[in-house]
Amino acid sequence: MDEQAALGLIGDRLPAAGDDCAVVGGQVITTDMLHERTDFPDGTTRYTAGWRAVGASLSDVAAMGADATATVAVYAAPTFDADELSAFVDGATAVCEAVGAEYVGGDLDGHEEFTVATTALGETEDPVRRSGAEPGDAVCVTGTLGRTAAAIRLFERGEVGAANELFQFEPRVAAGRALADHATAMLDSSDGLARSVHQLCGASDCGASLTGPLPIDERVDAVAADAADRRELGVFFGEDFELVCTVPEADLAAARAATPCPLHRVGTVTESGVTLSGEPLPDRGYSH
Amino acid sequence: MDEQAALGLIGDRLPAAGDDCAVVGGQVITTDMLHERTDFPDGTTRYTAGWRAVGASLSDVAAMGADATATVAVYAAPTFDADELSAFVDGATAVCEAVGAEYVGGDLDGHEEFTVATTALGETEDPVRRSGAEPGDAVCVTGTLGRTAAAIRLFERGEVGAANELFQFEPRVAAGRALADHATAMLDSSDGLARSVHQLCGASDCGASLTGPLPIDERVDAVAADAADRRELGVFFGEDFELVCTVPEADLAAARAATPCPLHRVGTVTESGVTLSGEPLPDRGYSH
Repeated sequence: MDEQAALGLIGDRLPAAGDDCAVVGGQVITTDMLHERTDFPDGTTRYTAGWRAVGASLSDVAAMGADATATVAVYAAPTFDADELSAFVDGATAVCEAVGAEYVGGDLDGHEEFTVATTALGETEDPVRRSGAEPGDAVCVTGTLGRTAAAIRLFERGEVGAANELFQFEPRVAAGRALADHATAMLDSSDGLARSVHQLCGASDCGASLTGPLPIDERVDAVAADAADRRELGVFFGEDFELVCTVPEADLAAARAATPCPLHRVGTVTESGVTLSGEPLPDRGYSH
Repeated sequence: MDEQAALGLIGDRLPAAGDDCAVVGGQVITTDMLHERTDFPDGTTRYTAGWRAVGASLSDVAAMGADATATVAVYAAPTFDADELSAFVDGATAVCEAVGAEYVGGDLDGHEEFTVATTALGETEDPVRRSGAEPGDAVCVTGTLGRTAAAIRLFERGEVGAANELFQFEPRVAAGRALADHATAMLDSSDGLARSVHQLCGASDCGASLTGPLPIDERVDAVAADAADRRELGVFFGEDFELVCTVPEADLAAARAATPCPLHRVGTVTESGVTLSGEPLPDRGYSH
């Protein structure tokens, strides 16, 4: 069974699951695991690992339109080096401070591969789910696409300073809160724009016609081999942690004014089918 | 740096950490990671793994004297088998139901070794910490000691049915809530009785004189080679998830009456030093 099918099984079993966070009373909660082989390329500092792992969970809180309150992490590694562990705590603390949350600790575990499990909590009385989009709504995305893809290329080239900086994204908690008043559906782009739009459309029982131009990060242009590569990195690669949301046409100007980061309209919700520039957009993206 | 030193570093950095749970407002939160090589012997079913992994975090909530509210888990494995995943969810759900909490989901991760990261949330306005013990208080422990040690021996012998049953412990959430009105300090026995008492004494700046007889589980007698082995399994092996607490002498009868499981007095809080039957008790136990 692949991961999508397995997630479907869990979603069918657990009514609180199936969105970026589970909802429990007025709280949202989310948990993730990242590990060296797939998530932390050679050259990733422990500061960046702490920032990014905790940030990934904070991004899920942001996608519910919630305030981020607290995070914990398990730090699992073959050995515990004081400098590495301190750097990890520094990064985890810094990303929490950037969004008004508190990093309250966690646990240590001896583990062959460096692995981090993070959990974030948030508060909202009115979570934004993936399932409220209506035909005619504008499809929007915050920030830029492809930032992580560009970072991976920089790691491969050995430009680890720039790559680490790109890996330290600011979770869109403030944007999520602002968009909560306007968005009919929302999720984060951790699986890539293409899969994220497919997930939103699946949950909302609708389609989307994406038209672009897509806000592909200029740092993708600096690393992409050609136009096809640029599209692959910007649309499918994922792990970007931007917000993808749908906003009623009439609300779009107000949503944009309220959001403290760029909010790009990239298309329109339709009855069915997901297309980009009129061509079917494959449901393909990052598998965790 | 060993795990104890590393935990000390984290405790110094993060004021909310350093107890069984971090405290955030009226909530407690704890996270743990368990993995196949060290925590799930050959023969452990996925139902047991789900029960036990989520139960380990619920035990930390219990140790704060809190109500358990919700749990999440990351299920990380090389492949996702529908039956295994369903069994895991069944076990996780069952242990939550046993203590009045809700299992709300989590995440999946492709990982070489079967690994589970769990997080549990609880609520209390007045958490019981490890640090309130006073000389003269009675040292108490719930239930029996050595249950997990006995299970491990049974797994080694291939008696996997009985071993799986022993591995499915009921987290002492109800006992923890009852003891919260009486206990001056509390933690769970996941590191073994010896290390747990040392940790409580370290946090409370006191000592303890343990006198016994210790409530060593009768299933330890069935597997122990001799008296020394019995003591090793009952006192040092750990991973039992009972509560170790200190209760003022005058409160002991009331605490016992309120606690919905056996509460054994095993000693008395002293000014300094940890002894068992008058001999120094080494600070040795399970390292996670």
